[in-house]
Amino acid sequence: MTYRNLISPTSSSTAAFPPHDAALSNGTAPTSNPASHSPPPLKKVLTKGSGINRHLQHMEYAVRGELVLRAEELAKKLKLAQQPAAALPFDHVTYCNIGNPQSVGQPPITFVRQALAAAVCPSLIGAGPPEQSASKGMFPPDVEERVKQVLEASHGVGAYSDSRGLEVVRARVADAIRERDGGIACDPEHVFLTNGASDAVKTMLGLIVRGTGDGVMIPIPQYPLYSASMTSMRGVQVGYYLDEDKGWSLSMAELQERLEEARGQGVDVRAIVIINPGNPTGQVLTRQNMEGVIRFCEREGLVILADEVYQQNVYVTDKPFISFKKVVTEMHSKVELASFHSVSKGVMGECGLRGGYMEVVNMHQDVIELIYKVLSVSLCSNVIGQLAVDLMMTPPKPGEPSYELYNAEVTAIFESLRRKALALSEGLNSFEGVSCNPSEGAMYLFPRITIPEAAKVAASERGMASPDVLYCVELLEQTGICVVPGSGFGQKEGTYHFRTTFLPPEDQISDVIEKMRTFHSNFMKKYSANSQS
Amino acid sequence: MTYRNLISPTSSSTAAFPPHDAALSNGTAPTSNPASHSPPPLKKVLTKGSGINRHLQHMEYAVRGELVLRAEELAKKLKLAQQPAAALPFDHVTYCNIGNPQSVGQPPITFVRQALAAAVCPSLIGAGPPEQSASKGMFPPDVEERVKQVLEASHGVGAYSDSRGLEVVRARVADAIRERDGGIACDPEHVFLTNGASDAVKTMLGLIVRGTGDGVMIPIPQYPLYSASMTSMRGVQVGYYLDEDKGWSLSMAELQERLEEARGQGVDVRAIVIINPGNPTGQVLTRQNMEGVIRFCEREGLVILADEVYQQNVYVTDKPFISFKKVVTEMHSKVELASFHSVSKGVMGECGLRGGYMEVVNMHQDVIELIYKVLSVSLCSNVIGQLAVDLMMTPPKPGEPSYELYNAEVTAIFESLRRKALALSEGLNSFEGVSCNPSEGAMYLFPRITIPEAAKVAASERGMASPDVLYCVELLEQTGICVVPGSGFGQKEGTYHFRTTFLPPEDQISDVIEKMRTFHSNFMKKYSANSQS
Repeated sequence: MTYRNLISPTSSSTAAFPPHDAALSNGTAPTSNPASHSPPPLKKVLTKGSGINRHLQHMEYAVRGELVLRAEELAKKLKLAQQPAAALPFDHVTYCNIGNPQSVGQPPITFVRQALAAAVCPSLIGAGPPEQSASKGMFPPDVEERVKQVLEASHGVGAYSDSRGLEVVRARVADAIRERDGGIACDPEHVFLTNGASDAVKTMLGLIVRGTGDGVMIPIPQYPLYSASMTSMRGVQVGYYLDEDKGWSLSMAELQERLEEARGQGVDVRAIVIINPGNPTGQVLTRQNMEGVIRFCEREGLVILADEVYQQNVYVTDKPFISFKKVVTEMHSKVELASFHSVSKGVMGECGLRGGYMEVVNMHQDVIELIYKVLSVSLCSNVIGQLAVDLMMTPPKPGEPSYELYNAEVTAIFESLRRKALALSEGLNSFEGVSCNPSEGAMYLFPRITIPEAAKVAASERGMASPDVLYCVELLEQTGICVVPGSGFGQKEGTYHFRTTFLPPEDQISDVIEKMRTFHSNFMKKYSANSQS
Repeated sequence: MTYRNLISPTSSSTAAFPPHDAALSNGTAPTSNPASHSPPPLKKVLTKGSGINRHLQHMEYAVRGELVLRAEELAKKLKLAQQPAAALPFDHVTYCNIGNPQSVGQPPITFVRQALAAAVCPSLIGAGPPEQSASKGMFPPDVEERVKQVLEASHGVGAYSDSRGLEVVRARVADAIRERDGGIACDPEHVFLTNGASDAVKTMLGLIVRGTGDGVMIPIPQYPLYSASMTSMRGVQVGYYLDEDKGWSLSMAELQERLEEARGQGVDVRAIVIINPGNPTGQVLTRQNMEGVIRFCEREGLVILADEVYQQNVYVTDKPFISFKKVVTEMHSKVELASFHSVSKGVMGECGLRGGYMEVVNMHQDVIELIYKVLSVSLCSNVIGQLAVDLMMTPPKPGEPSYELYNAEVTAIFESLRRKALALSEGLNSFEGVSCNPSEGAMYLFPRITIPEAAKVAASERGMASPDVLYCVELLEQTGICVVPGSGFGQKEGTYHFRTTFLPPEDQISDVIEKMRTFHSNFMKKYSANSQS
């Protein structure tokens, strides 16, 4: 093994300045006295524009954008108002802007919370110090059993784990991936546990993007994590459009054209992001589609970044989720692949725990070691989130004490999601001038809306980048429903959309639909009228 | 408010490639058939060297470096061995390489774990759904009370929080900071909760470093998070030496010289990192020293990044910890400051929870909003870690039900740390050819070791960057004690050190000292002998 000195200039491309020994030993007074210096500067060092990393200034993230800040202002206003009814035209804000199930009433899974509580406070299962007075036997034996296994194989939730995640968890996750993919081998050394999927995505993009000339193909519409990360990393976003008229399907011709267009402009395209099931579009890829993508990537030398965080959120029976790992392996392809998953979605919806993992396939051992090193600089992902990944991937099995309740809870959540997805898309399609592909998966709908000319004029007069922003702002101000403008995800020029989740409680969905319906027809009237006056 | 389209080329410096409408509507077959393409490339896209972001390849992180990987190999070997005694010259690996207290036996604080378990599984305090069958009253009433407050003011631990952290926690943390600093105001809007302090540090460096010409002053020796982050961000590490002969103190003359040297080489120096108490050096800054740094930064237009994660780990009575926030405010200085803290150190040692915060002072509102936006791309830090920050900053008060046990636990841990720090430094100083400044704070000692010429030759023959690597490798192989070579932190040319924690259980410390003593004298004999032969 070789070692190098961290601060020696040779150890990195960024020269350091180790002083000469001579300069060191002297304890002399400052070589320059204050008088010889300009007085304390009045202006700040860190200022917008040239004073801060411009790539971060250019970065945008609509899902948590200004519309959401406005929604929070309105919610505060309602909270403080004596008579909410008098304060605003609505009495509560309905957050449909982000896939955050537990913030809108989805309950956590009992099994998950019992296991995590036991891991945090082992005395609850009789495994902790006596001071933490608590009675054994309050949780089901299978919960006690698996938590004890993890505690025995680790230093608990309070110690840094291996930077890739606890070995015991990675081994169990690898087994679960193998089962998911019908027996295809999964090496725990190729599994990395991260703070949600976002950290894993950023880590991979950080390896792939070497400089400003490098590009990554990203769907349009897309989840803005990708555009924001590419912007901050100084890479080029090579957009490829999903075909709305064909249920947001992915066209190989489109991929080929966009790739050649980008290469024609001197971009070194290195990878492609595939979000399956789609966000914000909700489509599920067919196996044929996936095979096409894999052949395309082999042919063109691209890495596949497969965002598969919605793999448990598939609501159609004719298009089951198939992992890219499975298809790549069954095609005997050597294409390099990274697959991302998270505890934030699925039926657990444990967004706040920040648990996620990445599996890499066909990657060179050097790359696997480099990922390990990069993660080690952050020491490790939060260990409770790591345990949540284990609980998601290896749920109770039939016959185990926790199974019945677990199964009842996840079935109720899943079926409700399926019903809500259908109800909301049918509702939206019944509006005049709105068309919405049904959600085959994920947690979102991305309806297309027609916008009157007068509204376009009004939007540009208000300095909005796109008329769909005006639509969403007025929807929020008039109904309290917070959705995200399609322009925050990207859309075909001249088309307008918004992204809405279908996560509000089931008994509120029809109310949401009717509020949207009334708003929509008023919006159309208002701006059609204006345009005639 | 203004909105911009994420994927429009004008929205960022990294041009995107929205295809022309014409290209879109066509559903034609691939414009090119496989035949017209080169066959699947045999070589990988991601390869060491030119194939991956070189800045990440150059990055190093000794605290989790190859020496630690070797230690883990040895630990595995012992675990698998029938007779450990026969397998290796030691029967267990002693990890002194990283400040990870709970991995070496430090127990968690009962109050902390009870509160977190209740937040994870609210039925434990009668606040959750009945299915999570559990009896109320098992935890002290003050634990129940504060957890209920947090749950009522949030959506619980399973929902994404505000990207800056839960409002209720930031408010409590701000109150605690105000108390710490003797009543100096703290605005919750200037407090950001993060996954440990590391994420906060990387976020600030990411704003400050605009490109390859920008530099940040970093102490030598330093904690490698800073050098690794600067390398990955393409910034320049401007090293300034701490004066070992003066107890690792900070010399204003040294700062001035290094700054001018770097500027002379065209580096735009924008900030300085101060680690107080020091890591790996353990010194505590005097107020006079801090005032000098603040005047220096005002004069030279530098931002102060104050790594204050060891603020609770001060073992000397004559040098209390004083926050930079307090001194900056009392000097009426307008210097821009970011202060970092973490639940990983102190007496909690909850490394695995990844809880931390950053407070910014004198920053422009634009910068505060930009930090918010940057954090929003990762959605939020893990919420359980956020609660841990609250528990650290606002512990039980005298008279509260949890106080007595809490106080007994933290006192025992703190006094043990103090005794271990003293015992280990005295032990090391009793070795011939070893000198070690006592640890005034933090969790580390950084002894200076003399290395025989023959050992330097042997090290370079083995391709080691520094002879202290040879020393640490042989220490590990012969005693099982894992420490980190001084070259991983930086040291004055021609001097050699290693960093060791003093975290092993108190009853093992004398054994550690004696093993080190024997190893050291054997090492000196071995290489002195060689050099004479």
